[in-house]
Amino acid sequence: MTATTCFTLKYKDKASSARQGEVATPHGTFQTPAFMPVGTQATVKALTPEELQSIGSEIVLANTYHLYLRPGHETIEKLGGLHKFMNWEGPILTDSGGFQIYSLSKLCKTSEEGVNFRSHLSGSPIFLSPEEAISIQRALGTDIIMCLDTCIPYPCPYQETREATRLTSRWAGRCKEAKETNHQLLFGIIQGGMYSDLRMMSAEEILEIGFDGYALGGLSVGEPKDLMLQMAEKTIPLIPENYPRYIMGVGTPEDIIECVWRGVDMFDCVLPTRNARNGMLFTSSGPVVIKNSRYKDDAAPLDENCGCYTCRHYSRAYLRHLYVSRELLSYRLNTIHNLHYFLKLMTEIREAIRKGAFAEYRRKFYKQKEENE
Amino acid sequence: MTATTCFTLKYKDKASSARQGEVATPHGTFQTPAFMPVGTQATVKALTPEELQSIGSEIVLANTYHLYLRPGHETIEKLGGLHKFMNWEGPILTDSGGFQIYSLSKLCKTSEEGVNFRSHLSGSPIFLSPEEAISIQRALGTDIIMCLDTCIPYPCPYQETREATRLTSRWAGRCKEAKETNHQLLFGIIQGGMYSDLRMMSAEEILEIGFDGYALGGLSVGEPKDLMLQMAEKTIPLIPENYPRYIMGVGTPEDIIECVWRGVDMFDCVLPTRNARNGMLFTSSGPVVIKNSRYKDDAAPLDENCGCYTCRHYSRAYLRHLYVSRELLSYRLNTIHNLHYFLKLMTEIREAIRKGAFAEYRRKFYKQKEENE
Repeated sequence: MTATTCFTLKYKDKASSARQGEVATPHGTFQTPAFMPVGTQATVKALTPEELQSIGSEIVLANTYHLYLRPGHETIEKLGGLHKFMNWEGPILTDSGGFQIYSLSKLCKTSEEGVNFRSHLSGSPIFLSPEEAISIQRALGTDIIMCLDTCIPYPCPYQETREATRLTSRWAGRCKEAKETNHQLLFGIIQGGMYSDLRMMSAEEILEIGFDGYALGGLSVGEPKDLMLQMAEKTIPLIPENYPRYIMGVGTPEDIIECVWRGVDMFDCVLPTRNARNGMLFTSSGPVVIKNSRYKDDAAPLDENCGCYTCRHYSRAYLRHLYVSRELLSYRLNTIHNLHYFLKLMTEIREAIRKGAFAEYRRKFYKQKEENE
Repeated sequence: MTATTCFTLKYKDKASSARQGEVATPHGTFQTPAFMPVGTQATVKALTPEELQSIGSEIVLANTYHLYLRPGHETIEKLGGLHKFMNWEGPILTDSGGFQIYSLSKLCKTSEEGVNFRSHLSGSPIFLSPEEAISIQRALGTDIIMCLDTCIPYPCPYQETREATRLTSRWAGRCKEAKETNHQLLFGIIQGGMYSDLRMMSAEEILEIGFDGYALGGLSVGEPKDLMLQMAEKTIPLIPENYPRYIMGVGTPEDIIECVWRGVDMFDCVLPTRNARNGMLFTSSGPVVIKNSRYKDDAAPLDENCGCYTCRHYSRAYLRHLYVSRELLSYRLNTIHNLHYFLKLMTEIREAIRKGAFAEYRRKFYKQKEENE
């Protein structure tokens, strides 16, 4: 008999490790496999919560690092927590800030105790411990909170990776200790760089501590796709099936399908939203670079097969005009479309798993992709 | 008996020249006094047409100059006209481009034939005649189109003003000649700078040609408010009461109330939308500069007395956070609020006129303003 967890497994694919389930959080449940739009600064750029909901988003991600620097977790706590602050009533996951400290801040220095860095906004020195990362996320009041992990460059020598991975485990233990008895779900992060044995060692250590869910960190950092999938393959099976599995910062539609195939439940990535703002749009007939002059007089919708607000009301010509004119509406319409594309993909994946047709869905996906090329 | 025009006068204020009516256009009627949000490049910055409608906008304005340069009127025509292009089904007014050529482009040179200038985008030389201005607006397919007028600096010597005013009249005649027999409404523009006698001369000449409505141009260009109102006062009574009267580029809430008092029906101004993007917000208790640190922890809505989407869902603290973080949602939420403020003002003005209580409304408006200071 397996313990009761936040995760309910509903369907298991026969041909693969894919599964369909749901995660229960203090602000409601969400269906998995799930894609979490990124709302870095307490807003998914350009969209309202109502829009996010209407395009099928059940959970959003926010960045602890950004909110800690501005407006400050104490401010958000005083105002009733992040849900109220940003007017989003559904589940929110916050990362711990580990990756942002590593990628955005200056003079980042990791010690046993925690990490010293300088704010990318003010330049002022800041010290963050695993305990503090938990305390900040408690103040934010989000539903799923993450352990503080250490980040390493890619590529990274074996010994250095091993040390960082072990430190991540020690910090994970401190995070669990620090967490108050409340309804927040705390996820552990499995590291180990690009070394299978370190990934497995990390999984063992993190599982030993015991969390509400498990994430794979330190992937999609520039390594070849095969290597990323290999790391996932080695690690995912070690996580008991009654826990949600989250792969951080992944990825493209293909990455998502391949990780779902391997048993991953949760994803987040800036790709749909960032690409939208750069005029790079996902469509059923392949990528569209909307500023391309070929769309100047194009009366067709961005994607004939898409039912999103943007495709129902606007032509490629208008989207191109807004983009080249740097109009604010451009970012918004593009973001609606790209997020709708990702969230529809997740809906289709879930349906396929429920129908026992995920292998077929995956095959068709690649066939379509080939035809588009 | 007066001729049938696009304007239906419904209520006349007893205490002032204010009136309430409606203007019939090919894309529906709108109530006056009306404020037209400015959608320069075929979009009211950051908002969708559905949002505009939901905050009470019945007509929008677009800029012929901008659309002529990008994406080009022929492109818009090919795509089915401006309404379809921008997904706005209600009335649209386009200005002629005269003011934008004068204020935005370089090396602007006016001759009897038309105006030579350089595109503010590409620097390429362009010639625009009154006939061409009409032809461009025909291609855009908008509901109310404007004559090409000449613009002068403020202050401007009498003789120069007189010459520019007379040229505007000759161009107005050519515009009327050039207009095809279609359903578009063509408005004449009364100029005359800051000289009462030239304003009256211009009104006489423009009225003599005969248009579907009449606008006052060349006001709100830096002159003292008293002078602007004085010019309006001299000119408005010369326009027969069965024609709509439009004062271009005006103005602040006070300007609007004073011009309505003097019999003006239509307004447009970038003030609410531009100020919104600069974090300057109109509220019932006076202006709010949202970046001010005093709002950092302020859980109250921007305006307790406002029912707009922004005020119903967000705190001042969140609006401040979005603004200082330069988030796209900031421009959108601020724009919704400011436009709602202006459109609610117009609704209240119309109601007050209908109830015969406009003088009372105006008195209260100034009392409130005094209390806010």
